[in-house]
Amino acid sequence: MRFGTLEAGGTKMVLSVGNENNELLEQVSMPTEAPEKTIPARIDWCRDKGIVSLGIGTCGPVDLNPASPTYGWITKTPKPGWSDKPLLPPMRDELGVPALIDTDVNAAALAEWELGAAKGLNSCLYVTVGTGVGAGLVIEGKLVHGLVHPELGHMLLRQESNDPAPDGFCPYHKGCLEGLAAGPAIEKRWGTKAQNLPVGHEAWNLEAAYLAQMCVNAICAFSPEKIILGGGVMQQKHLFPLIHQKTLALLNGYVQAKEILESIETFIVEPGLGTRSGATGALLLAKQAYAEAEK
Amino acid sequence: MRFGTLEAGGTKMVLSVGNENNELLEQVSMPTEAPEKTIPARIDWCRDKGIVSLGIGTCGPVDLNPASPTYGWITKTPKPGWSDKPLLPPMRDELGVPALIDTDVNAAALAEWELGAAKGLNSCLYVTVGTGVGAGLVIEGKLVHGLVHPELGHMLLRQESNDPAPDGFCPYHKGCLEGLAAGPAIEKRWGTKAQNLPVGHEAWNLEAAYLAQMCVNAICAFSPEKIILGGGVMQQKHLFPLIHQKTLALLNGYVQAKEILESIETFIVEPGLGTRSGATGALLLAKQAYAEAEK
Repeated sequence: MRFGTLEAGGTKMVLSVGNENNELLEQVSMPTEAPEKTIPARIDWCRDKGIVSLGIGTCGPVDLNPASPTYGWITKTPKPGWSDKPLLPPMRDELGVPALIDTDVNAAALAEWELGAAKGLNSCLYVTVGTGVGAGLVIEGKLVHGLVHPELGHMLLRQESNDPAPDGFCPYHKGCLEGLAAGPAIEKRWGTKAQNLPVGHEAWNLEAAYLAQMCVNAICAFSPEKIILGGGVMQQKHLFPLIHQKTLALLNGYVQAKEILESIETFIVEPGLGTRSGATGALLLAKQAYAEAEK
Repeated sequence: MRFGTLEAGGTKMVLSVGNENNELLEQVSMPTEAPEKTIPARIDWCRDKGIVSLGIGTCGPVDLNPASPTYGWITKTPKPGWSDKPLLPPMRDELGVPALIDTDVNAAALAEWELGAAKGLNSCLYVTVGTGVGAGLVIEGKLVHGLVHPELGHMLLRQESNDPAPDGFCPYHKGCLEGLAAGPAIEKRWGTKAQNLPVGHEAWNLEAAYLAQMCVNAICAFSPEKIILGGGVMQQKHLFPLIHQKTLALLNGYVQAKEILESIETFIVEPGLGTRSGATGALLLAKQAYAEAEK
């Protein structure tokens, strides 16, 4: 059986076909243009693939309420042309297959929970640190949506005293996580792209300090059983030991869980599925859409 | 049918008997002493009440994992004599009734979600601001436990620039929510008990600023459908409009939910059950313990 997946991002969209064994069989990446051009092109690619359902992981903001008349629509966004535009409905209706949508980060969290670093647990937090900072969350075995969906990137942090740009670069919030720690913030603060900064540069200590604050606040807020850090910035693997050490220092022994106190290196980890978390999560959504339609 | 409830706090314990209509019929409060004295006294009070099960809401830290050999034990605590002591097991075994335990704040969150301010929703955050700051959390219709249980009081906040005591008073963490905003922090910062500070005193602006930061971070972390603020400090009802206004200012329009943008006064609210949230939650746990044993 073949399932269609779409990872819809602000700069590119990745389409895949996967099978019931959670294998991704073929994949294509296309730039994100105006919806009038982008969506028909996506539909065309899917049309002859023999897919039985579609799963979409998308950048937000998106209406995820299945009871809403605008379920699967992108809501207000600074991305030109995309505000209040339907994403899921035209694909579902043109392709004539059942479809489900979630945020890209919730899809990745779902995949990491079912098949990756958090397999067998009841909860996990998946955070991507790249062009932005986003997070998906599984709690007590369920993806978290809530009122809208988590927007962990805009959590307010305490500005570090040695930060040369302590207000950060978010147009909405002074000193939120994304404005302080996403890739573009690193570039603006230090005047060069993050990947040009050598291991040992003070930028990485600062980056780890902000990510450790986020880990502490996530632990205090909802007590996840695993924190998974992915995205472009986290390709800097040397960040992990710094984040581990700073998280322990900030917690200062308060949260008495041996998973944290004795083995934080297996508590705050890389994605188990590498860079496939998002596409695999969209595949799981597609399988779920098919199963629900067959009921 | 009669159900027993225990609210176990660090300074007092409140026992009640309730019925299947969620009414609390009789109640007694006793000081918390050493467990060797306190627990037998609680058992004695319950013995002739004809209860069919017991629900316990307790201050943490507590082992909430039903599969653990120390389920229902208090774990490491600064409270003298209580570290690594069983609370639920002796009561369950001596009384010979099924029993369930959760944190006091999770019990309150459960009651507010089933019967109070968050009735009919999928999620809510219940925060008590008093001697300490604690939080219970219902997400997608389930109480959140996770690795241990939420410890929202130790979330790290950005210290306000006009705070005369910006490090706060938590022995573990500089600048965490509890250390900055619990009742004792207010008293230490201003040299008088919170209830002596008049409406309009700068203390309340500062208090509202910290609680608004917490609300913003909760909204960004897990997108609750309702935030309920209870506890002694929140008896200062004039705090609510300040918290509403500061939360909106900090979010700066980023989270596009009409519940927040258009009616924040019904989004961040007082407990619907007044001061009965905790006892009612313990009663719901008792009813659940009975139902599970009857299966």
